[in-house]
Amino acid sequence: MSLAERVLDGDIRAAARLMRDIDDRFKSAVEELKTLYPHTGNAYIIGITGPPGAGKSTLVDQIVAAYRKRDLLVGVVAIDPTSPFSGGAILGDRIRMNRHADDAGVFIRSLATRGALGGLSRSTMDVANVMDAMGMDVIVIETVGVGQDEVDIVSTAHTTVVVMVPGLGDDIQAIKAGILEIGDVFVVNKADRDGAERTARELTTMLEMKHPDDDGWFPRVMKTEGSRGVGIEELVEEFDAHRTYLKESGALQRLIEERNAKVFADTLRDELFDSVMSAISADGTYQEILTGLRDRSTDPYSAVQKVMAGSAFT
Amino acid sequence: MSLAERVLDGDIRAAARLMRDIDDRFKSAVEELKTLYPHTGNAYIIGITGPPGAGKSTLVDQIVAAYRKRDLLVGVVAIDPTSPFSGGAILGDRIRMNRHADDAGVFIRSLATRGALGGLSRSTMDVANVMDAMGMDVIVIETVGVGQDEVDIVSTAHTTVVVMVPGLGDDIQAIKAGILEIGDVFVVNKADRDGAERTARELTTMLEMKHPDDDGWFPRVMKTEGSRGVGIEELVEEFDAHRTYLKESGALQRLIEERNAKVFADTLRDELFDSVMSAISADGTYQEILTGLRDRSTDPYSAVQKVMAGSAFT
Repeated sequence: MSLAERVLDGDIRAAARLMRDIDDRFKSAVEELKTLYPHTGNAYIIGITGPPGAGKSTLVDQIVAAYRKRDLLVGVVAIDPTSPFSGGAILGDRIRMNRHADDAGVFIRSLATRGALGGLSRSTMDVANVMDAMGMDVIVIETVGVGQDEVDIVSTAHTTVVVMVPGLGDDIQAIKAGILEIGDVFVVNKADRDGAERTARELTTMLEMKHPDDDGWFPRVMKTEGSRGVGIEELVEEFDAHRTYLKESGALQRLIEERNAKVFADTLRDELFDSVMSAISADGTYQEILTGLRDRSTDPYSAVQKVMAGSAFT
Repeated sequence: MSLAERVLDGDIRAAARLMRDIDDRFKSAVEELKTLYPHTGNAYIIGITGPPGAGKSTLVDQIVAAYRKRDLLVGVVAIDPTSPFSGGAILGDRIRMNRHADDAGVFIRSLATRGALGGLSRSTMDVANVMDAMGMDVIVIETVGVGQDEVDIVSTAHTTVVVMVPGLGDDIQAIKAGILEIGDVFVVNKADRDGAERTARELTTMLEMKHPDDDGWFPRVMKTEGSRGVGIEELVEEFDAHRTYLKESGALQRLIEERNAKVFADTLRDELFDSVMSAISADGTYQEILTGLRDRSTDPYSAVQKVMAGSAFT
């Protein structure tokens, strides 16, 4: 039986193995994902991002608990910042969200950032597709940080949640402006802290300026205290409201199409590059290029043109 | 005269125009970069990263001033967090580092994060190459945030500087572990704040554990107050020390080779993808794929396999 068939049979270990293969970019993984694809499209995907120190993990933990209370199956994809050298995740699956460790209704997967740019976004979508095929009702994607990678990742979710906290310094203002447009729901976490009211008010004002008289969805600013579970039920209800809006407006279908186009593009980009790099490594061209770069008899731009000229695409 | 020739002639406006072309991914830019390449390899490249709120911009401003006092020409590439929708930089060149605005010895360029993953790293290297060919002695690359993109960008610098501040919350610990290995110099900025001593001590302890009895470079932890210019001279001297180490140990040559290999790989990846996307858009294949994805008669993974099968590389 293929890995994919075992995943469809409910084999958790096969799912974990396939996710590792995805992370390691095994060629076979694409074949398995093809088999799983017809069984995807049912999960509701929530992306959560925000600056370091905003308490995202605790919040995700509470959101998972809230969905479990409703008897829904929950998958979590946690993007860990990792060492570009060791390649390993800092926070293991076991450390994170310990209280759900024995709950068979929760499947948690940490994804390392392996270096290859763009790879993380692709891995996240692929892993979410596996969880979707496994029958998870809700998939929560959590990213630490607010770089372009993170923005790309959460923007493939159905509902994008931006978590802020009061008083995180000046640069935050700039980042806030950058992510105003991607958030469907905003959360001021650690709402018991000084300045929470003000942060929430400022955010609301900025959002009102962005959406002057929009007929569509207006992103609300919710206040939570992740550590005490305050405001979680209201937050999950807001997710429901957004999901309903997406379905009724037809926006959900558009999001799914964009997501598929992105999986196609990211996968194609990697496969093309891998296949050309294999070819030029096998016939010695790449070694010649490296030597030429070393003795400055060529430059990276000319080398690319040379390889492209030898391909069928130019 | 080509743009590249005008750049080599010292034409600032031509340089700015070429950098825009690079950012916009104009095909012609690769040709100009080829012309400039033989004139590169002289600039010293410093990459600066750290979490939001660490005061990086103020610090960069001070570092620029210190190099200007030595009569060196300084280029600054500032990576701005941007809206994935509007595509524009939030902080314009004019707002940043105002006090150097009238100094002809300082060339500042903000780079937007345009969405295409991996693109930012490539643009940064290309823009740094232009500044190098322009005759800048020092190039400072500043990134806001600590995601994988940022790590990739600063790791192509000769000297990588990680800026921290006291008391930025728990997630910072995790991120710190992730970037311990990329920093050649660590800075605890806002050193007048409570806890600065402790943050510096903790960092030093972590670094000592990482480099038990290394013969090579041991990253020092420096303390600065960017806003008052405290510790800047010592910091720039530490950069000098690292540069000397790189030259004498032969590590500089290795860094330059790695950087060239990365420019080659990033450029090849983009060019291959662009050229295949153009081809399948022109002959209608891409439109067929989108339709197939919409009515679920195909999936993204099969579509990639189909395109790859029609290429000369498989």
